[in-house]
Amino acid sequence: MPHIDLPSSLPGIRALATYRPETGKPLYELAQVLLRGGDSPLTEAERELIAAYVSYLNQCTFCYSSHAAAARFLFKQESDLVDLALNDLEKSQLPDKLKSLLRIAAKVQQDARTVSTEDVAMARSFGADDRDIHDTVLIAATFCMFNRYVDGLATDTPDAADLDVWTSMGERMGTLGYVPPSKT
Amino acid sequence: MPHIDLPSSLPGIRALATYRPETGKPLYELAQVLLRGGDSPLTEAERELIAAYVSYLNQCTFCYSSHAAAARFLFKQESDLVDLALNDLEKSQLPDKLKSLLRIAAKVQQDARTVSTEDVAMARSFGADDRDIHDTVLIAATFCMFNRYVDGLATDTPDAADLDVWTSMGERMGTLGYVPPSKT
Repeated sequence: MPHIDLPSSLPGIRALATYRPETGKPLYELAQVLLRGGDSPLTEAERELIAAYVSYLNQCTFCYSSHAAAARFLFKQESDLVDLALNDLEKSQLPDKLKSLLRIAAKVQQDARTVSTEDVAMARSFGADDRDIHDTVLIAATFCMFNRYVDGLATDTPDAADLDVWTSMGERMGTLGYVPPSKT
Repeated sequence: MPHIDLPSSLPGIRALATYRPETGKPLYELAQVLLRGGDSPLTEAERELIAAYVSYLNQCTFCYSSHAAAARFLFKQESDLVDLALNDLEKSQLPDKLKSLLRIAAKVQQDARTVSTEDVAMARSFGADDRDIHDTVLIAATFCMFNRYVDGLATDTPDAADLDVWTSMGERMGTLGYVPPSKT
């Protein structure tokens, strides 16, 4: 049960954006420009995977399940990349550039001060540029926020095993992007 | 030295908002509505203290030093409350409500899933309402983002011991609020 009185019909961040639209607006705008903005060198699928990976490390069921579903939807035929990365990043057959960026994301999640010149040089050696690195760090940092906001207030979360719910949520996120819920 | 090519004349988050104004805009809007919005039951000084406290726990020198300075400026004659809280929250003479909210903020910083019904009930027993608890959790979560964004990209930070720089930054933040830097 949520720690505060939230609209009961909505899960996770959607309940919070409805509870306080003044903060919901910039939060949804941030998610939209960061995960859907057209000028990132990272694909939408790659950006959703970074979001899902960080949420998985933070053990935030709502954000992890929904963004993993969005990443699977956006990767299309390559959707198995998502679960390979989440299950065991180092052993996975992910492209080297994406793997090196996910390693940076994991350091940001744990302690951002530990991201080293060597980590960044490794990503660059696989073709990452400044914008890849910037967007990776900001997506990782942003989901450290969303995860804490959603879990710190104990928002309602659908059952992690109810795959139909997440698949349909991921498809909506992959299609419509991030639009604040209308006030209920 | 920053991990990516940032405008050299600006420190911390200001360099990042200049590098990518599209994300800088919602980030500054979030800071403004969260820390300066007029409808929070928490004073601006209390909100800045929560930001400084979480940034201190994350050991983010830029955010800690600047928001502690803003909190000192806004607490005016009670500015010693800031350093009392940061030095030893439990032993400090902070008002009980604020102390109980800072304890919740610390749990959000560490692992937001550990915020318990008892933590929230304790804050309520000292007069906190839903909005106090909501704003505390979102400020704590938001600074877990800003801290990681600033440190994950190794942005330039003035010397922590250069108190004149921070005092003047805190006064500007306490007076003008959060306005994105103009493109340099």
